[in-house]
Amino acid sequence: MATDGKSNLSFVLNKVHDVTFEDRPIPSIQSPHDVLVAVNYTGICGSDVHYYDHGAIGHFVVKDPMVLGHESAGTVVQVGDAVTDLKAGDRIALEPGYPCRRCADCLAGKYNLCHEMVFAATPPYHGTLTGFWTAPSDFCYKLPDNVSLQEGALIEPLAVAVHIVRQAAVRPGDSVVVMGAGPVGLLCAAVSRAFGATKVVSVDIVQSKLDTAKTLGSTHTYLSQRLPAEENARALRESAGLGKGADVVIDASGAEPSIQTSLHTVRTGGTYVQGGMGKSDITFPIMALCIKEVTAKGSFRYGPGDYSLAIELVANGSVQVKKLISEVVPFSAAEDAFKKVKEGQVIKMLIAGPNEKDV
Amino acid sequence: MATDGKSNLSFVLNKVHDVTFEDRPIPSIQSPHDVLVAVNYTGICGSDVHYYDHGAIGHFVVKDPMVLGHESAGTVVQVGDAVTDLKAGDRIALEPGYPCRRCADCLAGKYNLCHEMVFAATPPYHGTLTGFWTAPSDFCYKLPDNVSLQEGALIEPLAVAVHIVRQAAVRPGDSVVVMGAGPVGLLCAAVSRAFGATKVVSVDIVQSKLDTAKTLGSTHTYLSQRLPAEENARALRESAGLGKGADVVIDASGAEPSIQTSLHTVRTGGTYVQGGMGKSDITFPIMALCIKEVTAKGSFRYGPGDYSLAIELVANGSVQVKKLISEVVPFSAAEDAFKKVKEGQVIKMLIAGPNEKDV
Amino acid sequence: MATDGKSNLSFVLNKVHDVTFEDRPIPSIQSPHDVLVAVNYTGICGSDVHYYDHGAIGHFVVKDPMVLGHESAGTVVQVGDAVTDLKAGDRIALEPGYPCRRCADCLAGKYNLCHEMVFAATPPYHGTLTGFWTAPSDFCYKLPDNVSLQEGALIEPLAVAVHIVRQAAVRPGDSVVVMGAGPVGLLCAAVSRAFGATKVVSVDIVQSKLDTAKTLGSTHTYLSQRLPAEENARALRESAGLGKGADVVIDASGAEPSIQTSLHTVRTGGTYVQGGMGKSDITFPIMALCIKEVTAKGSFRYGPGDYSLAIELVANGSVQVKKLISEVVPFSAAEDAFKKVKEGQVIKMLIAGPNEKDV
Amino acid sequence: MATDGKSNLSFVLNKVHDVTFEDRPIPSIQSPHDVLVAVNYTGICGSDVHYYDHGAIGHFVVKDPMVLGHESAGTVVQVGDAVTDLKAGDRIALEPGYPCRRCADCLAGKYNLCHEMVFAATPPYHGTLTGFWTAPSDFCYKLPDNVSLQEGALIEPLAVAVHIVRQAAVRPGDSVVVMGAGPVGLLCAAVSRAFGATKVVSVDIVQSKLDTAKTLGSTHTYLSQRLPAEENARALRESAGLGKGADVVIDASGAEPSIQTSLHTVRTGGTYVQGGMGKSDITFPIMALCIKEVTAKGSFRYGPGDYSLAIELVANGSVQVKKLISEVVPFSAAEDAFKKVKEGQVIKMLIAGPNEKDV
Repeated sequence: MATDGKSNLSFVLNKVHDVTFEDRPIPSIQSPHDVLVAVNYTGICGSDVHYYDHGAIGHFVVKDPMVLGHESAGTVVQVGDAVTDLKAGDRIALEPGYPCRRCADCLAGKYNLCHEMVFAATPPYHGTLTGFWTAPSDFCYKLPDNVSLQEGALIEPLAVAVHIVRQAAVRPGDSVVVMGAGPVGLLCAAVSRAFGATKVVSVDIVQSKLDTAKTLGSTHTYLSQRLPAEENARALRESAGLGKGADVVIDASGAEPSIQTSLHTVRTGGTYVQGGMGKSDITFPIMALCIKEVTAKGSFRYGPGDYSLAIELVANGSVQVKKLISEVVPFSAAEDAFKKVKEGQVIKMLIAGPNEKDV
Repeated sequence: MATDGKSNLSFVLNKVHDVTFEDRPIPSIQSPHDVLVAVNYTGICGSDVHYYDHGAIGHFVVKDPMVLGHESAGTVVQVGDAVTDLKAGDRIALEPGYPCRRCADCLAGKYNLCHEMVFAATPPYHGTLTGFWTAPSDFCYKLPDNVSLQEGALIEPLAVAVHIVRQAAVRPGDSVVVMGAGPVGLLCAAVSRAFGATKVVSVDIVQSKLDTAKTLGSTHTYLSQRLPAEENARALRESAGLGKGADVVIDASGAEPSIQTSLHTVRTGGTYVQGGMGKSDITFPIMALCIKEVTAKGSFRYGPGDYSLAIELVANGSVQVKKLISEVVPFSAAEDAFKKVKEGQVIKMLIAGPNEKDV
Repeated sequence: MATDGKSNLSFVLNKVHDVTFEDRPIPSIQSPHDVLVAVNYTGICGSDVHYYDHGAIGHFVVKDPMVLGHESAGTVVQVGDAVTDLKAGDRIALEPGYPCRRCADCLAGKYNLCHEMVFAATPPYHGTLTGFWTAPSDFCYKLPDNVSLQEGALIEPLAVAVHIVRQAAVRPGDSVVVMGAGPVGLLCAAVSRAFGATKVVSVDIVQSKLDTAKTLGSTHTYLSQRLPAEENARALRESAGLGKGADVVIDASGAEPSIQTSLHTVRTGGTYVQGGMGKSDITFPIMALCIKEVTAKGSFRYGPGDYSLAIELVANGSVQVKKLISEVVPFSAAEDAFKKVKEGQVIKMLIAGPNEKDV
Repeated sequence: MATDGKSNLSFVLNKVHDVTFEDRPIPSIQSPHDVLVAVNYTGICGSDVHYYDHGAIGHFVVKDPMVLGHESAGTVVQVGDAVTDLKAGDRIALEPGYPCRRCADCLAGKYNLCHEMVFAATPPYHGTLTGFWTAPSDFCYKLPDNVSLQEGALIEPLAVAVHIVRQAAVRPGDSVVVMGAGPVGLLCAAVSRAFGATKVVSVDIVQSKLDTAKTLGSTHTYLSQRLPAEENARALRESAGLGKGADVVIDASGAEPSIQTSLHTVRTGGTYVQGGMGKSDITFPIMALCIKEVTAKGSFRYGPGDYSLAIELVANGSVQVKKLISEVVPFSAAEDAFKKVKEGQVIKMLIAGPNEKDV
């Protein structure tokens, strides 16, 4: 068996700031539709760090020890009897959430809204910072030859960005403002360009992040000012030549001032999408939404077709996710990697799987 | 000439709480596409009362004396040379805002968002509480025989409701919650039913308004509680059997607690529309919008097809606007009518035109 | 066990015009999500008769004996361990097609387009003219108290009509023309009315069917003439006061002249939906589609939410399916019922299940 | 005055194959919204040649002498008093159709469907193969500095392609097949790529046209075979690796076999748009449309935003329209240019305006 002699070492969060490496039993295929995957690389997400730091996100509370990680690429080890489109040795990106397939949302093509979703590293479910993983084959996406396994681990945040940009219905010729130039904000800007947006303005309070945005496709950047939101928005619009406002504004920051500025930056009849997580309740310019007939949408994880398109965008060179990788570290350095992300000087850290030699 | 010996007495707001009746020159047709209309009845809108009380709405400030009123029906007196579908004697509902027809919003079918809009009784433009009015013929809608001129004056608020319900994309089988049971809220509930909503829940803090809602088509009512928004929403959902939430929530109140409750009442993947005007900035549950992937939309006035459908809904008996008329008063009693609306014990007051005998 | 002493007699098509009654083993629950259902009533569909008469529809060929029937309502006998929303004794409508839940179409909310669909009485799969049936619980829809089991058997053709009318995106105020006044055409007209269509014109070549249409909600009828399609369309438009054409035209006939007339009846910018089955290739006015920017859509079976809405429309009185039932016959009279449908003098025949006493 | 001493020589079609040059009076601004434009370059469209050859297209019949041409770019000479966004000397692309702005279609943002449209070189209206032209300013689009006047004359066919691709709702990641590699087909392929289509397959019966398609962005080409449509479609799908079919098929040929092949090439649930003009009635695989739930749409001219986006696509390098220009000839060679287009060995001929020196 291909798992012979392999480790299933896992990176477990016991409670806030208390992590351990634990050798857990290698999982096995439970359904003929399942695939057993050796995890090669896993990126660290802000939510992983938030659990590490706070032990909870909203009403998702880590009560029992939980394996962290959900941004992974791996290699197929074994496939169930009903699996025809994958075989051992295939390199794949792992979509880490598995819906019930039976509720009204699932049947209607909105599986990301499924209330029965089993999502990696969202309590009480374990994550992918482990040696082996099983998943239904339709949530495993074969990587083309020209997409590496390290890039494969970035398909997850890219799928988040694809979903946001699709929620925003970005169209060719649009002007798009993206608030926040963290990994998801950077990717939203790059995806907007790939969707044909003519003008893409990245906004952040850190100049170095804006510099990175430039290399990933943003046509303009704006260093956000500590001004009242309407004034900040006016300065932003003038700086980027947005006239009466942007067709689309995406908030990928979750920060209250950014969200307020978003509503004053979007044009009459435009679209604003809330992609970033932050405080539950904020002061919000509701009448700007009303009078300008803004369409506002939330965006949550990813749904049908998002992973496939994300891979396609990497394969055809539209989005250079490789540029986001700050460092790849061995599995044993997982906690250090978490600390680096927390310190904020890196963009994306990748952790190699416990059996991965190419670090 | 059909205006011979007729009065063009107008009800003019000079400044806050200072109104006068003024006999102004009868207007004449300026373009071959125009129609001259004798105004028969005009309803009083909350915005009229707001100008009377405060002299301004947002950045629209009454600087010079302004004729009030914009919810009118009238009778065609004369038509321009290019007008073929209307003739003298036709009874019409008057759409009171005239867009530029040339900007990107107008060309794209969003004339309600036109920045050059000339809207009755929105400073600096005069309103329809006057004897005669000119308008382009395509903004004058012939009333069917079974729709009275008094009902015709209610087409304006009904068109507001139609636009809101269209923004909400209410579909057959939907559950709809309408916050607020003032004239527009009542009409939103009735229009939602006409659009095939199975369950329509009217919400207000005044029981008598909820009783009216019942007679206009709401299937359920909920007397809003002074509770934190999440608790109020939970009680509302349970009371109306909404399960995981309503498909659509419309706020027709503009009140901060209602808007907060709206976001906690709408289901995952549902739609919330802000129709009512209120404070510019409020505390808003932004993460509920984000995580539930709510679609939020503003609604502003009305656009293509809204007036036609409003008339159709009255003509075919779907919406009984007549029930909203609290009283019809002569032109000379205009200020009294404004005071009654302000006191809040009436639903809709109609003011007869200065030449109208049927009061 | 609730199936003790009960028959699983089934109505089997061996080959063209060769049917037999066969007592087959009672099926049992295979998955914890399954439900075992006793079939109470089954309607006969045109496709059932077509298999009986021709042994095939397109590339679906009856090679082995096949149980006929797929329009059924039944009573829950037993539920699998994972089923929480149904229990023994519940009366249900049976959705008769079961998709794979894993292909791109299923995940995207288009399960009716699933290439792995297992559909009752579509070769090689058996149908529901039998005693007992198993189905996944999410394809079994509980009937409200005020919907009878006989009405429940009509939910299937009503769901077909709901799907067609949704494909047509019928909106309040629309004018809709429905070609054909067989069961599905009659139901399309009734559903269009329930969706708020102001004018619904039923078209057929048989006056008695048009008379039935009138009782089910059509506002106008037109007895189709043997004229060139453009002339027939002109006469139709004039007869029904459709001006420049209908907003929506639905072909529920599959007949070449009807389809041609449809394209000349729909207005510029309108929508035409092909719901009825007929010849593979016909002479088609393609330039009418091009120049008028018509949106044409096919409609195939039903998808997410269609069954639920169909039941709701019966429960709230919007669509009186009961009027379509021509006769209810015992199981033993199944072949006679097929012959009556073939003769064309009935609308909808129901066949009681082999254990059903209420006939 | 800027027209002093300038010629208004016009290229007039008297009747089939009978053209003359006629010096007509220079037009003057009629409305304060109008612009007077000196025509620099005009492309020849298939419809121009069709009028030259047949004197009619459908029910548009040339009864009186008519100036030909409608694909033009020019230079602003004078602007009306209400024009603020253009001034003398501005280089513009001319949108050649002027809608009524008042009918339901215009108000709803579908001005291309306006029944009162005044369209250049569509009888009874004169075209733009003349010296000077007046147009409302909102139908004159300023060219960016990096777009030449010759490219400006190609904005018209590019806007046709943009409209078709928008009707097709091409999305990033889509596979698109374009039937026909004439000017519009080539541009549809290029625009589809600009909209993010991953795979764009050009299809024609002339290999040299397919070679051109390759240089404009098509990822694949297919030399159409004289086979029954289903076989041709199967070969096409296999040749281009389209699996179960293309997401989108655009027919830009108008040819019966191409349209038939289109319906067999599009995937289940896909979209087919008819952009090319041809025979009124053809043999059409209607059941393929029905069973596959294809969305079919016509596309007619262009509407709101199409010209702006077309210019943007040229300005940002997405579509290299320059490659389509076969030859630029002086005004005096207009008839020769028509003959060359008719012979079919050229892609796009440009005719310089009568006052243009740069040929």
